[in-house]
Amino acid sequence: MTVVRKIKTLGLLGTGVIGGGWAARALHFGIDVIAADVKPEMEAWIRGAVANAEPALARLTCAPLPSKGVLSFTTDMRIMAERADFIQENIPEQLPLKQRMLAQVSRHAAPNVIIASSTSGLTPTDLQRDMASPERFCVAHPFNPVYLLPLVELVGGDRTAPATIEAACRFFTYIGMHALHVRREVPGHLTDRLQEAIWREILHMVNEGVATTGELDDSIIYGPGLRWAAMGTNLIYHLAGGESGMRHMLAQFGPALKWPWTKLEAPELTDSLIDRMVEGTQAQAAGRSIRELERLRDDYLVAIQQVLRQFDIGAGSTLRALEARLYKDAAAGEPAGSADAGRPLRLLTATVRPEWVDYNRHMTDFRYGQLFGDAMDALYRQVGIDEAHRSGTGRMYYTVESHLIHLGEAKVGDSLYVTTQILAVDPKRLHVFHRLHRGADDALIATGEQMHLHVDTGAARAATVDPAVQAKLDSIHRAQSGLPLPVGAGRHIGQAKA
Amino acid sequence: MTVVRKIKTLGLLGTGVIGGGWAARALHFGIDVIAADVKPEMEAWIRGAVANAEPALARLTCAPLPSKGVLSFTTDMRIMAERADFIQENIPEQLPLKQRMLAQVSRHAAPNVIIASSTSGLTPTDLQRDMASPERFCVAHPFNPVYLLPLVELVGGDRTAPATIEAACRFFTYIGMHALHVRREVPGHLTDRLQEAIWREILHMVNEGVATTGELDDSIIYGPGLRWAAMGTNLIYHLAGGESGMRHMLAQFGPALKWPWTKLEAPELTDSLIDRMVEGTQAQAAGRSIRELERLRDDYLVAIQQVLRQFDIGAGSTLRALEARLYKDAAAGEPAGSADAGRPLRLLTATVRPEWVDYNRHMTDFRYGQLFGDAMDALYRQVGIDEAHRSGTGRMYYTVESHLIHLGEAKVGDSLYVTTQILAVDPKRLHVFHRLHRGADDALIATGEQMHLHVDTGAARAATVDPAVQAKLDSIHRAQSGLPLPVGAGRHIGQAKA
Repeated sequence: MTVVRKIKTLGLLGTGVIGGGWAARALHFGIDVIAADVKPEMEAWIRGAVANAEPALARLTCAPLPSKGVLSFTTDMRIMAERADFIQENIPEQLPLKQRMLAQVSRHAAPNVIIASSTSGLTPTDLQRDMASPERFCVAHPFNPVYLLPLVELVGGDRTAPATIEAACRFFTYIGMHALHVRREVPGHLTDRLQEAIWREILHMVNEGVATTGELDDSIIYGPGLRWAAMGTNLIYHLAGGESGMRHMLAQFGPALKWPWTKLEAPELTDSLIDRMVEGTQAQAAGRSIRELERLRDDYLVAIQQVLRQFDIGAGSTLRALEARLYKDAAAGEPAGSADAGRPLRLLTATVRPEWVDYNRHMTDFRYGQLFGDAMDALYRQVGIDEAHRSGTGRMYYTVESHLIHLGEAKVGDSLYVTTQILAVDPKRLHVFHRLHRGADDALIATGEQMHLHVDTGAARAATVDPAVQAKLDSIHRAQSGLPLPVGAGRHIGQAKA
Repeated sequence: MTVVRKIKTLGLLGTGVIGGGWAARALHFGIDVIAADVKPEMEAWIRGAVANAEPALARLTCAPLPSKGVLSFTTDMRIMAERADFIQENIPEQLPLKQRMLAQVSRHAAPNVIIASSTSGLTPTDLQRDMASPERFCVAHPFNPVYLLPLVELVGGDRTAPATIEAACRFFTYIGMHALHVRREVPGHLTDRLQEAIWREILHMVNEGVATTGELDDSIIYGPGLRWAAMGTNLIYHLAGGESGMRHMLAQFGPALKWPWTKLEAPELTDSLIDRMVEGTQAQAAGRSIRELERLRDDYLVAIQQVLRQFDIGAGSTLRALEARLYKDAAAGEPAGSADAGRPLRLLTATVRPEWVDYNRHMTDFRYGQLFGDAMDALYRQVGIDEAHRSGTGRMYYTVESHLIHLGEAKVGDSLYVTTQILAVDPKRLHVFHRLHRGADDALIATGEQMHLHVDTGAARAATVDPAVQAKLDSIHRAQSGLPLPVGAGRHIGQAKA
């Protein structure tokens, strides 16, 4: 196979969950798809699957996309094979069936059309046995949901040409995937062998009544699962070994390989195995020290927990529950505003997260707005507006206008605090002025003036605030009435400096 | 044990990586810590470990924290045992050593002081054998880094009182953890059995030369690892089964349990095991349909990839590389600004992500600022300011002022677009006006006026922009010169409507 085709149309042999996932991903990145299935009812099914994937796919990137591909359907595998530039097989996991269908399709497709199989565990040498031009065949094993997970395992058989793997790798990269070339044929490839080891251990534990499926899932998602989102077992164990990394880790935990910690027996920990593990993880570390890798691990562990917190799932639920208690404890500990009477309230402290920083290595401009929003939430809590109040009354403040002035910069790890001054309050409007300071030197690095409107969300119009809340806001406003109007308040963009 | 002590001081028996992690977490959440280690040099070590954990811990939550705890150190285990309200043992993983030390410490600690062991795999019945008041003992097994991962496995032995588990659970929850009660003693508890199954399979594969440690790690982090951050194998397989969930999944993949997909043999898939698996996952689904769970899974998979993208790690690197190509393709495809000549530029489209939405179910106010920032990045790219330009010249635009007016609302899944009008441009300043529209009805939902200053970041002062860039900005500005001044431009907060 010397000529590599430009891939404009992906042919699918078989639909189902995997076929639907392939279709959604390819269409999204501008590739036409022709799906072939002997059952005509699968046309509606695959269109539904593509539609279902779209809301998530649409959020994967804001980068400009080519025009979406066009989906067509046929019950005639031959039509698909003649039109496709790349064929992906997704039929049931039965070797004789796959062999027969792959052989058929290979006789209708031009010899420079790559044919790949989504098989979870069958090996390419077996699958390509009866094909025409078997050199253009490989396994390309994706993971559910195919439209969101980037991994695809590429495995060649005895008769696969290296150029086939290279061209398949380029195509899958084009549609946003990470192609992992599996260099040896083994049942289950790499990923499913590791997944299957966990899965079988789970079945043993449930079978013996040690734990429920939920407890076993919890044993992963609150701990190792968070790490596995970006570092695998080997690199994680390299970190666990301290400054001497994997070698120390193997010395320390080597004996445990003889213990009955799983039903799976370990191989003998020979010197040559130790060397391979050490050399492999050193290559992964790529010159980065344990400290550097730990920092990277910690950064993503914190950031992922922030994400899960917003979905109230797994470790994010733990964090939410913790924060609810911390706010409650803090409210019980201090009478509202007393410590700050007569000064701007100091309601929020925060540390600049690495993911808040942009290409200029300073905190991105919209994060200033986020901190002023967090300060408003703290003010709301202090005057009695919490989740219960909002859901009970159906009323809450909406931000209607805000004006930010940037005066300095914030770097990763900087400790910051926000002070808040109420400029005016009436039954419907709340006019505030925030100042963002750097903790280390109290430098003023930004100001934020905001107008908030109290809204009845059901009626979608302005509504008066609860009198008890207004009394608290009035009391803060009165206490602050001696403060001068802040510099920058009432300013418009383009106005000359005072 | 009827009296449960209020826990103000955590005693650590042994330091090391795990002891240091316990110290950092407890101190951060307001608990004093007294660490005991026979080696006096471990005092400097544990203080270093606590300092090292602090930057990440400080970013875990913005909620108000109690005053930090105080750390003290002793080489005399007896002093620690007498002062602590809760003792956590973290000495090397040798049963006779642990038994001896736990017995000793139990004779110095009051009988209502809980003593817990961080052991990875030893069982509590063995560990508590020689203790005084063994009913106050349990295993409390944490995961590295202890200060960030919420999981702690609690396991009682034959002589552990239920009240011990309950009190330990309360304490660990207090310091932000998720306590998982492991109801049966098995070597390795739950988590390490599952981790060990993967680990041993990895060792076999490296030993047989099938793959390197890096390839095996990649086989997880680009695929199943992303899912495991919030859903375990069982719930994920329940989803893979489609509408009939786990039962269908077991019917479909049951035969694969006989295949050589791992070195670990599976148990017999009996009817009673199938029932347990199905009942367990139904309990986990808690009445949520497969569709609902899929949506939740997709939401967190997208959001986690956004996070990893910012750290340029794992699936985030894949996404970055994809976006770089998409921007390049888009730039090659369209001459700058031509299609939009004379109108505001339409540079950005985006879909409202679920994590952008707040308690009012509308897009949070600071996300408007984020979209206007993304629109500015698109404008910069269009006029030739990209990463290479910024790093080559050391110059870039900083936002110095911005004014947002909210006119409508955006909900999850809404498609939005931003148009951008240049109001003024000179060699140092760029004055722009963005409008955010809803795609479905073109409704204007916010405006954002911004002033940007071109800065030499080395000298930290305003500097003239590259003439080629200014020529492009001028050309857009000239083409837009017939547009009226936008409503809202030049407005200040509190100004009456025009």
